[in-house]
Amino acid sequence: MSDLTQQKCEACRADAPRVTLDESKELLKQIPEWEIMPQDSIDRLTRIFKFDDYLEAVSFSNKVAELAEEEDHHPSILLEWGQVEVNWWTHKIGGLHKNDFISAAKTDVIFNT
Amino acid sequence: MSDLTQQKCEACRADAPRVTLDESKELLKQIPEWEIMPQDSIDRLTRIFKFDDYLEAVSFSNKVAELAEEEDHHPSILLEWGQVEVNWWTHKIGGLHKNDFISAAKTDVIFNT
Repeated sequence: MSDLTQQKCEACRADAPRVTLDESKELLKQIPEWEIMPQDSIDRLTRIFKFDDYLEAVSFSNKVAELAEEEDHHPSILLEWGQVEVNWWTHKIGGLHKNDFISAAKTDVIFNT
Repeated sequence: MSDLTQQKCEACRADAPRVTLDESKELLKQIPEWEIMPQDSIDRLTRIFKFDDYLEAVSFSNKVAELAEEEDHHPSILLEWGQVEVNWWTHKIGGLHKNDFISAAKTDVIFNT
């Protein structure tokens, strides 16, 4: 499977397919720190990033927001003292699209660089 | 009662008093758009701010984070497409301190200017 971080989000239609269970298992191997968590009956990719420094957490949140604008795909970003929780999901299809896995992989790159 | 926006957060000890029900009713009159919502059995002051533009929502989130650093009092800031939810509470006392009402009032000033 090609590297998620090298891919771009595609425009997502309301009738675009959700990832299947097999696909999501395969894709999660590339982003092992993320979990699939349902919220309001909608699956979301979620990860909590820890920070000792509040301004570093703010800076990380801003970079994820920049990524969101670039990809035209917007997560929830929950900034608190000590951590940032990011959730990716696709509102239009009420679940997970490959776009979400691409965005999660790119969020990891932001965190690791 | 003096204007909340003119006050500074005071250092908060673990044995500092929570606001009483009567005090919180009085303080809420100055921040009528906020609600007290329990989460994990801890009362929090919460308000959702709506935005048409994502970058405006990001900018608002950053200004609230700057306020947090100035006051050394940190809320949760949940950035999503179209809105930002801010929650203020005082971790050390497991509830609401006057600091939270001061911070909420200052958050309103940021939104309104």
